[in-house]
Amino acid sequence: MRTIYVIGIGAGDPDHLTLQAIAAMNRVDVFFTIDKGPTKDDLSALRGELLARHVHREHRVVEAPDPRRDRAAAAYEAAVVDWQERREAIYERMIAEELGEDGGGAFLVWGDPALYDGTLRILERIAARGAVGFDVVSIPGISSVQALAAQHRVILNRIGRPFTVTTGRRLAEDGFPDGVDDVVVMLDSVDAFAGLPDEGIDIYWGAYVGTADEVLVHGDLQQVKDEIVAIRADCRARKGWIMDTYLLRRREA
Amino acid sequence: MRTIYVIGIGAGDPDHLTLQAIAAMNRVDVFFTIDKGPTKDDLSALRGELLARHVHREHRVVEAPDPRRDRAAAAYEAAVVDWQERREAIYERMIAEELGEDGGGAFLVWGDPALYDGTLRILERIAARGAVGFDVVSIPGISSVQALAAQHRVILNRIGRPFTVTTGRRLAEDGFPDGVDDVVVMLDSVDAFAGLPDEGIDIYWGAYVGTADEVLVHGDLQQVKDEIVAIRADCRARKGWIMDTYLLRRREA
Repeated sequence: MRTIYVIGIGAGDPDHLTLQAIAAMNRVDVFFTIDKGPTKDDLSALRGELLARHVHREHRVVEAPDPRRDRAAAAYEAAVVDWQERREAIYERMIAEELGEDGGGAFLVWGDPALYDGTLRILERIAARGAVGFDVVSIPGISSVQALAAQHRVILNRIGRPFTVTTGRRLAEDGFPDGVDDVVVMLDSVDAFAGLPDEGIDIYWGAYVGTADEVLVHGDLQQVKDEIVAIRADCRARKGWIMDTYLLRRREA
Repeated sequence: MRTIYVIGIGAGDPDHLTLQAIAAMNRVDVFFTIDKGPTKDDLSALRGELLARHVHREHRVVEAPDPRRDRAAAAYEAAVVDWQERREAIYERMIAEELGEDGGGAFLVWGDPALYDGTLRILERIAARGAVGFDVVSIPGISSVQALAAQHRVILNRIGRPFTVTTGRRLAEDGFPDGVDDVVVMLDSVDAFAGLPDEGIDIYWGAYVGTADEVLVHGDLQQVKDEIVAIRADCRARKGWIMDTYLLRRREA
């Protein structure tokens, strides 16, 4: 039976890699990669470094183009689903054609496979179609949220209290979620934090956390939001992409 | 200046350790430990294994007793705060007495220091008192939630949607949170899941995930809740403690 490893490689710092991830990488015959548009060069460089440093067996790297996603689509979820369906066809073909009957393949993913990454979902759907058989092994990795919290030396929750993880799009549409005072925001392409009218909120923001490009900002949301908007625009202009996350924390009354 | 490292060592699998954690452990002169009651033997064994395998410099291990927490207290938060204040005094004394002016100390914590662990909060309060000076470095680790998701091969969020992380106590008091369909529950000492009346919920549960004692259950909440309650009772009786987490997922209509 083929085995497909989905391996979280952390948020950008090569030392985020776990021993478990390294062990899994050394059971892999073929590393499958997919062109991630503007992040391609950086992810590719990190992947190359990780393979060179840690993989001590013969392996191949098979690249496939990433189907372009319609980021302007009004129906975000439908656009993602359509994009994932096209990825399905590509992944299925790669697994069937590049991997022997007992071969090991891998996808290396930013952060953690369980957090706003679609690879496991795509593999589950391919497996359900039944055209190609394989087992899936998921290897957790340090997410950008954890790297962010570590660099700010904050705890995501307060004692015995909940927190919510959401997306920039949801925050922009729905505002600060009900029922929680601590909100982690990922995938914010719309500067959603800057549109919040709420007072008494602290923001812990960071981009490229754990890398040489790391930028951190912490302060009262209303006071620092313009600074963060400006830094984000500058980062995007300079690198072509940004990977950032933030924690919004309502101050105690 | 002294440096105190708070190092996440993962959820029980020694291979959850990151390269960053290993590098930090090799800058440490004194590993501070605190008796964690029933989990003491297992945590102590894991810590011993990690130090023996990965630390290649002279170091000491300094143990202190954990102040007993009043787990029967009606006011949970007040009980935790009281317990943390007593830990503060112990930690402050250990840092001042055991560490040289430029020494490195470390606390190794289960999971991730940013997720339902109080060490960073205690250190911040000690630093604020000003009696002993030190820098804090937080090193992220694989949390039990990530290990759980990996073993079940699930993604915590659904496409573009939020999820909430909460405690068993909150779930028992407030029920399934509003505004989300996916809920991660930690620190459940009251079988809170079993008290939920909701239909149409799947549970992905796991205990001691990533260790030899791992137990996983997945299914419709109402159908498997009694099985999980029984397994939890058995685990507690057998090992004296349990470390488990679960994801509750409302099925699509």
